[in-house]
Amino acid sequence: MPHGSDTLLALFVIFVAAQIGALLARVLKLPGVVGEIAAGCVVGPSLLGWVTPTEPLEVLAEIGVVLLLFSVGLETRIDEMKRVGRSAFLVGVLGVIVPFVLGSLWAHGSGFDWDKSLFVAAAFVATSAGITARVLQELGVLQRRESRVILGAAVIDDILAMLLLGIVTALQAGEDVQVGSLVLVVAEAVGFVVVIGLFGTRIARASTKRALPEKFGTSLALALALCLGLAFLSTKFGLAAIIGAFLAGMVASETPQREHLEHQTQPLLALLTPFFFVLTGAKIELAQLADSATLLTLGVITLIALVSKLAGGFLGALALGRRGALIVGVGMMPRGEVGVVIASLGLAAGVFSPRTYALIVAMSLLTSIITPPLLSALFKREAGKPDPTQ
Amino acid sequence: MPHGSDTLLALFVIFVAAQIGALLARVLKLPGVVGEIAAGCVVGPSLLGWVTPTEPLEVLAEIGVVLLLFSVGLETRIDEMKRVGRSAFLVGVLGVIVPFVLGSLWAHGSGFDWDKSLFVAAAFVATSAGITARVLQELGVLQRRESRVILGAAVIDDILAMLLLGIVTALQAGEDVQVGSLVLVVAEAVGFVVVIGLFGTRIARASTKRALPEKFGTSLALALALCLGLAFLSTKFGLAAIIGAFLAGMVASETPQREHLEHQTQPLLALLTPFFFVLTGAKIELAQLADSATLLTLGVITLIALVSKLAGGFLGALALGRRGALIVGVGMMPRGEVGVVIASLGLAAGVFSPRTYALIVAMSLLTSIITPPLLSALFKREAGKPDPTQ
Repeated sequence: MPHGSDTLLALFVIFVAAQIGALLARVLKLPGVVGEIAAGCVVGPSLLGWVTPTEPLEVLAEIGVVLLLFSVGLETRIDEMKRVGRSAFLVGVLGVIVPFVLGSLWAHGSGFDWDKSLFVAAAFVATSAGITARVLQELGVLQRRESRVILGAAVIDDILAMLLLGIVTALQAGEDVQVGSLVLVVAEAVGFVVVIGLFGTRIARASTKRALPEKFGTSLALALALCLGLAFLSTKFGLAAIIGAFLAGMVASETPQREHLEHQTQPLLALLTPFFFVLTGAKIELAQLADSATLLTLGVITLIALVSKLAGGFLGALALGRRGALIVGVGMMPRGEVGVVIASLGLAAGVFSPRTYALIVAMSLLTSIITPPLLSALFKREAGKPDPTQ
Repeated sequence: MPHGSDTLLALFVIFVAAQIGALLARVLKLPGVVGEIAAGCVVGPSLLGWVTPTEPLEVLAEIGVVLLLFSVGLETRIDEMKRVGRSAFLVGVLGVIVPFVLGSLWAHGSGFDWDKSLFVAAAFVATSAGITARVLQELGVLQRRESRVILGAAVIDDILAMLLLGIVTALQAGEDVQVGSLVLVVAEAVGFVVVIGLFGTRIARASTKRALPEKFGTSLALALALCLGLAFLSTKFGLAAIIGAFLAGMVASETPQREHLEHQTQPLLALLTPFFFVLTGAKIELAQLADSATLLTLGVITLIALVSKLAGGFLGALALGRRGALIVGVGMMPRGEVGVVIASLGLAAGVFSPRTYALIVAMSLLTSIITPPLLSALFKREAGKPDPTQ
């Protein structure tokens, strides 16, 4: 019985495009993820038009990036995260403040009033951990101290971005900023991360000394249930789903099944992460950016986004030495789909014109394409040298 | 950034409900799949209302059943299928004719005119291979001759069901049956199955003597691309997506990577097949069947559906001995989502009243719940005895 034929075709096209893109990228000595995003741009509405982002494809993409961060969490131990806590905190905070200040200055300079400028600036803030996590995993450097700092900072970054978005949305709507309720919201989010990150991992370590009877389900099924459950819960605390998935991975990494789970997660990533990266690429609307004035503006805001995040991350991570701080700064640069979400909110709220919307989306996605090769080059230039930070 | 929160919750609920249902079923010594379908009925709109089938969930379910039949194909060798070709053909043909004749007699007896009766009867015809395949896999009996016959017959069944549906749709719309074009459609479908089944497997066997360089992608990525591609193509030939996926699995099973692929497919099935079975259960609309007259009718048509398929399958498989033929007949009984699709077509075309629609959907799903315990009991009663057919 033929049904769902169009969706099956889209699945096939996306999956194959991702493989071809990753292959070409590797031939060009670039990270595979760049090829997958570029392939999305090619098969997406801007060029070939073979794939249009639809709700089912978005859900597959979301599951893909959730599983990716779960697998990154699996390779992350809470003890090692605690050791880089101070640097991660500084990187998270400075990596939000510097882009927010520079972004709002640029927006005000371009003629937005202050309330709107702060909203525009919010789109400069939030790091998207998916792209960087994938590059770190591809390079096999998740155990490096810089990687820990980036991942920890991404969690802090997400909490602060939520706070900022709450403030600018209230300001923009002409409402008073309810300091009390904002403090409560942030306290809840911090509480969620701390409870899962500290106590969840401790419970996992203690309880799995006695193995569960096999009939209570396989360890993979339990881990996936934990991953989906915490991903959902974390959206309830105003955080990205990937934060909950990352924490779930960290909890699972404290169990004796860790290696088994790492192994079993690989086929899931192989099937599902291409949807995330190809759809990221498919959202780049080239037609909106066709005239040279817009391209110039795009260049300017992309430069501001890159430099401000780099500066914030670099300053926060100076304790890792200049090269380590550089890696961290670069690793924090991608805005990815988080920038797209904020731009959509701005468009819906009438703060952004369609052109501003297209610019911010394009900037977010450009940062995602530019980061992987830089990060890869920085790590490879180090290869062979002993890692002074370990 | 909170987005997709509702979908994440649905994913979590479906996944956990499936695990709990499967656990309870195993405690009751039933196949896990019965528990997953029952769990879907509980969390679905009929009872708790926690999960509503949406398009993204349907797509996940479709990917789940496609991967399931791919993995079944991986455990199926073309040479062994050829050996049971004759029995499979007879089972497929008789398993379509008997239910169609009995179904149309019942429908005409219940007051439908002949054109509509034939349409109703079409819903009695098509076997849904997903349920049986899962039970056979759970029991570890995919290598048995009965399992081969069932799988081969399911392919032939799907071709004949497509043919029948083409005829009754034309009759119902008051059009002439275009014999020439129907023959062409069936010839194309048969051609697709034969070309992939015979030549695809041969090419796979020949070409993989030289291993592909690793940079052309992993064998899993290639296999998944083949699976999605053939699943799509098979819908283009009017067949179910799972037929193409099954053929893709058979092609991949001829390569040296077969065991590696079987291993890597397991986590994919663990994550995705629950969506198929839970959604199957969630579609059972209990409220439509509340009065006793409807329940009686439901009992009658379910009995007709079960007995007619059992008889057709049994007669076709007599060469396997009476017990083997019984297993084959039972294995062909589930109508599952194929019956649901035909019922939807009938509702849309105005052939069925909402009550008839609900009846046919409930009948299709009941056959899916009744079959697994029977099939499991038949195989278990044999356990210990040597298999005379091997």
